[in-house]
Parts: sequence; structure tokens; C-alpha cells
Amino acid sequence: MTDLQSGSDGVAVPDFYHYAKAPLATVQHQGDFLELAWPDGQRLRCHRYWLRENAMGVGGIDPATREGLLDPGELTEAMVMASVELTDVGDLSILWQPDGQRCVYHGGWLRHIAEGQHLPQSWLPRPRPWRAETRTGPPQRVALPVLEDDDALCDVLNDLIETGVCVLEQAPTELGFLNRLAARIGPIRDSNFGALWDVRADVTLAGDATTNSTANTGFRLGPHTDLPTREVPPGYQFLHCLVNEADGGESTLTDGAALVEALRDNFPADFELLTTRRWIFFNRGPGIDHRWSAPIIDRDCGDGLLPTLRAFYPVRAFPDMPDSDVAAAYEALRRFHLLADDPQFELTFRLGPGDIMCFDNRRVLHGRKAFSGSGQRHLQGIYIDRDEILSRARALNRARAG
Amino acid sequence: MTDLQSGSDGVAVPDFYHYAKAPLATVQHQGDFLELAWPDGQRLRCHRYWLRENAMGVGGIDPATREGLLDPGELTEAMVMASVELTDVGDLSILWQPDGQRCVYHGGWLRHIAEGQHLPQSWLPRPRPWRAETRTGPPQRVALPVLEDDDALCDVLNDLIETGVCVLEQAPTELGFLNRLAARIGPIRDSNFGALWDVRADVTLAGDATTNSTANTGFRLGPHTDLPTREVPPGYQFLHCLVNEADGGESTLTDGAALVEALRDNFPADFELLTTRRWIFFNRGPGIDHRWSAPIIDRDCGDGLLPTLRAFYPVRAFPDMPDSDVAAAYEALRRFHLLADDPQFELTFRLGPGDIMCFDNRRVLHGRKAFSGSGQRHLQGIYIDRDEILSRARALNRARAG
Repeated sequence: MTDLQSGSDGVAVPDFYHYAKAPLATVQHQGDFLELAWPDGQRLRCHRYWLRENAMGVGGIDPATREGLLDPGELTEAMVMASVELTDVGDLSILWQPDGQRCVYHGGWLRHIAEGQHLPQSWLPRPRPWRAETRTGPPQRVALPVLEDDDALCDVLNDLIETGVCVLEQAPTELGFLNRLAARIGPIRDSNFGALWDVRADVTLAGDATTNSTANTGFRLGPHTDLPTREVPPGYQFLHCLVNEADGGESTLTDGAALVEALRDNFPADFELLTTRRWIFFNRGPGIDHRWSAPIIDRDCGDGLLPTLRAFYPVRAFPDMPDSDVAAAYEALRRFHLLADDPQFELTFRLGPGDIMCFDNRRVLHGRKAFSGSGQRHLQGIYIDRDEILSRARALNRARAG
Repeated sequence: MTDLQSGSDGVAVPDFYHYAKAPLATVQHQGDFLELAWPDGQRLRCHRYWLRENAMGVGGIDPATREGLLDPGELTEAMVMASVELTDVGDLSILWQPDGQRCVYHGGWLRHIAEGQHLPQSWLPRPRPWRAETRTGPPQRVALPVLEDDDALCDVLNDLIETGVCVLEQAPTELGFLNRLAARIGPIRDSNFGALWDVRADVTLAGDATTNSTANTGFRLGPHTDLPTREVPPGYQFLHCLVNEADGGESTLTDGAALVEALRDNFPADFELLTTRRWIFFNRGPGIDHRWSAPIIDRDCGDGLLPTLRAFYPVRAFPDMPDSDVAAAYEALRRFHLLADDPQFELTFRLGPGDIMCFDNRRVLHGRKAFSGSGQRHLQGIYIDRDEILSRARALNRARAG
């Protein structure tokens, strides 16, 4: 475990990471900015107000919380850098007026910003789209080490960010095991289906008025993503197979990132319709009325790397677009769903007891074949949002790098 | 309670609401579309694929879940409306080929779409910006009826959507009371601070290394919104005052919707910088590394009605914009925070034991004055996301309308 209290040489910094020494070579004072440079040529320009906000101590960063205390309304022209120098060990030292404080800024902490290590995409693998034809199955890892070993957990989270999928194997078939897994990652995203929810046929194909979702029938579920009725659908889904004795019910996974690329490259008119024409989505029940309007491929929802797919046809409702676009939008939708179910994109496999299928619910479409017969089939599921997966992955990848 | 199973005349519909009869006057078949008309001139154009998807029964809507079963990949040109007519009571009847099913569509259900009652903004009040100079305080309502009475709950939710604020009074000062309140609304949004979290000074002003947030100090907190480090910050916040015996610690509320209007109208250059130039936000701690990059006034995050404010300066980090914009962006930020703390926008009042301050965390800035001394101050808080507040409000407003 790294030292979370300070920079390597005891200089406190405005967050809880450890920073290796990175002595500055020069500092130049240029009006409102300092221009910092390291011996290898790396540079960083810092505005005086940013430096004032990030001074450790009174009027800057609270040493206990490492959070800023300076309301921007209190910034004044009078806050000036009266003198600026490098310390013997290459940290930055500023004498502030009018309060007369001398503040030291750790060179390694400044360097991590110069290198972009503070950016959201830093310390994370890049998404890599995949097709079924180039894989024998989803990445697989053993479940139990993830509960104990940070490296094992880090590998799983990196799979989930890079390929959008990981199957954990040999987990105990105990109810609620997913809560132990979630405790290793972060808060569960709750919904009207509950924080930990069950997937099983409440009755066989005939249906039952108490059933609240197609998930809880024996019907086929084509490739889809859950809860497009929300402003931001749940980020990641974890489906733990407890029993699977039914005939049929094989699982499918389709990488929406590859699907989106194929649509953009080969069917640009369809891609245009799928990314711009909106549909209403809804989930209704007693006391519940969730609604959202958005395109099937939603580029407004996300971090700019991948769009969010809203592809749960059971809750897609009226088109929210001009009548003149509806026929073409349906053709584009048909194309989308045909490709999603095409073997070049779709992996098909059988989940066994103790398997946990983990995937990016905003990127990867999941489905299942119809099932029936007397055999039981019981899965439990949880959602964990993207923010939480990325947060944990950054922390673990950074700790792993030392 | 309304009948959630069917239209008023026993014709099943693709959701769980009750629909009053609304007999159609005419139906015209025009290629792929039907043009429906009611006696008062209201019209609706429906594409045949949409009608096929919304047919109750096999190949359309499952009667148990009221969800669609037709994978769009299965839509074919062969699905045609062989005959179309109105029933004796003005419902729509379609004979589908090639499967030979005759399907009836409830006129009242079709009418609710024609009137736009299916749209996300329907059944909700519109946001109304307010200034402190035109109010004596936030809207106030008695807490306990909200636990029992749907009308009382509906009033609170409408306040929260319209003005962004409501103070519930005379609540019991019991730990965890907010869980009972949440059970009436919807799932809590969890975070690394816990589903139900405490606000109290862990120590007085000197600080303590175990403190994880400025909230848990005695420092002043200027007007702010919580968790801008998330892709979508928590929607609504509920702060329950259990004890408030400290000197100081008065609460403040500022309507960001009014602030944004004032900036746009009076300081357009600042508004432009605040809505387009991005900053990095972060929350770090052992095992946690949340980050996001976005403008202070984030118009990309939301439903198009109101922007999301990312205004928690304690976790605002390096500017994510060209160096040449930084000085002007800081001036705009200073303007924003000065206005947020100006009495023309900011209400100041003292929360007493049993008060629950409820507000839209993405719209309304909250703050508190510094406090100190020997007196205790203890609040508990929860977040509930906007999706859940709007869902419950739609359901209650619709039930109230009959």
C-alpha cells in the first residue's frame, strides 16, 4: 500500500496520493502565470489563482480533508506572488502577499499534472472493440481471488473497461454473493427492481400479472441493454448464475462498440438515424413512471469515448421524431438488431452455476435464448455505475504502478 | 387508486395505467401509416411497425409484463394491415397478416399519445426560477403526513421540481428517519460517503486526518452543489437536522436557475466561459479516485430544461482548457460565486432540529456559515436521483388527476 498522506519528501499535497520526487529545473514568472520546466523539457503553466487555491494551509487546501477552502468569490487582484523560487530539492516555493505566507508545492505533484495523470482517462485502459469471430468466448477469471487480492480485482476491472466483459468462474452459488463482490468495488446502483435482484421465470411462458419485466419470463430476450428509461442507464451489470437446469436459456453478448463502428463504416445513413432520431422509453408500474427520450446510439450520454446504447426494445415506445423520419428510423433499427444478433458480433455460451457474467451495460448488449421445461433457472444481478468502476480502477492501477 | 390493469372498457393496453374512453372518429390507411382522428380534431399518425409492436398478445405486447416481445430484427415487409376499422365503441381494430390476428387498440390509450401525455415532461410542473428578494424563505411543509398521504408527498415533489426546494418541518429527530422518507419516494443514491451519511464536525476547526470532506469540519461552505466529480451529480439532496446548538452554521440556498439567467442576461461573456470551458473535478481517498471534466454550468448534463451546476470549489482542480482562457475563466468563476452569495439570490436561515432541507442538488446551491464553540451540530443526509423524483411525481400527479 502506498503512503496516502504526502509527497515522498514530506511536502504535503492537495490529494491523498504519494508522489515520487520530480525536481523542477526552472521557474519563470510571466504576469499571472508561472512557467515551470523539468530537466527533460516537460513544462506546465500555472495561473496564480490556481496556485493560491492549491496552497497547503490557511486560505488554500485544508490539510485534513485535502479539499480547497477558498471560495472563488474571495479571489482578489491583491493576491500576488511576491517572490518565487525553487527549493534545494526542486520543489516550488512561493511567498504570497498580502498574507505573507510562504507555500511549498511538491515537484512530483506538479509533474503529475504536467503529464496529464490528473485527467479522467488517465490510469485506465482504452476501450478495444471486439467481434465474436475473433474470440472463442468472453475473458474468464477465477472469482474468489477477486475478494482478497487487489491485483485480481484490478485485472477484472481492466477487462471491463477494455473489452466491456469478464466472466468470473467458480464463485460460490450462495444467495447474495454479489454483495460481497460489490463491497470490493463500490456502491451498488439501486432501482425499482431492488439493489440485488433476481432473474427467474415467475411462471413459464404463459405469464403472470405480478411479473414486472420480460427478464422474469421464459421468453427469448434479444440483444439488449438494461434501463434505457433512465437519464444514464446503469453502467455495469453483474449476473450471478445460481441454477441453470432449464432447456435453452443460453446467454449472448455483443460488443456494441464494434457494432457502432460497423454501422458507421458500412451503413452511414442508418448510423445517422440511430444517433440522431429519438424514441420515448418508459417503465411503468404501480407508483412508478420512468421516461426518457433519446437516440438508440446516444452520443450525448457518456465520456466522449463510447456512446451509450439504448437498446431495450421491450420498453421502447412512441417515436419522438418527425413522422417523415419514422419509416427510415425503423429500417435502421431493424439493421441494428439484425447485426447485434449476427454471429460475427454475437458470442453465445451457456452460463453454469457459479459463473458471474460481468459487463458494461451501456456498451455491451446481452441476451438469452428462450427456455422452458421443468428445470430451474435462477440468476441474481446487481448494477454498479461507471463512475465507481473507473474510480476503483484508477486507484488500483495507480497503486500497482507503485 | 386507479385500475392499473386495463383501459376503462376492458381493452388491455401496453402499460399499467387506466385510460378513460376516447372514441376515435375516423381512421385512414395511408401506405405505411394510419391517420387517426378524434371528434375534436386531435390527430395521430402511427407507423404500421409501431402498431405491430404494440399489439396486445403474441408477437407484440406480453399481457403479463406489458412489455414488447418483438425484436426489431424480426420486423418484415410481410407484416401488413389487411383490414383496419373502428369498433362500435371507437377503438381501433386491425387485422394483421400474415399471422391473421385481429388486434384492438384502446382509443383512450392512443389519445394520450396524441396529446403528448407520454412525453418525459408531461405530468410534471415546469421549473420556475426564484430570487431571494422575492421570497421570505423556502417553501415549508409538515413532514409526517408525507409518510402516509400521497397528496402530501405529491406537493413536496412538485415543490422540488418547480422551485427546487422544500423544507419539511416537525420531523422526528430520530437517526435514519430519512430512510423512511426515501421509502416513500424511491431508491437512494449511494456513494463513497454511504447511502445515509452524517454531517458533523469530526473535530473543531483544527481538522483531523480521518475527515473525508469539508462538510465534516466547522469551516464555512460557500454556495455549492455536491459531487461534481460524477458523470451526473446526485439529483436531489435531503438534509435532516437532528441537533443544531453550535454558534453560527446558518444554512443558505441559492437558485442556480435564477443565477444562470442573470449571468446569461447581464454577463454574457462570463456565461459563455462558464458554459464551455472545462475544469477537472476530483475526489480522492484510499481506494477511491473519482474524476470528471466539465464546465461549471453544464448544459450537456440534463434534460434540456436546466443545466447541471458543478460548483463545489473544494474539489475543483486544474483547468481543462487552453492556457489563454484561464485568466478570464477565473474571473467568470469569481463572478459566479459572488452572485451566488449575494442577498438578491441567497436565502439565509437557521435549520432547527426536525427540519429536513430538501433540494435539487444539480440546480440549487446550498451552503452554510462557519460554526464553532461547544455546541453540537449534527445532520444526516441522503441523495435520491432525479429519475426517481420525476418518476414518482408523474405517477402521483397522474393519479391525482384521476
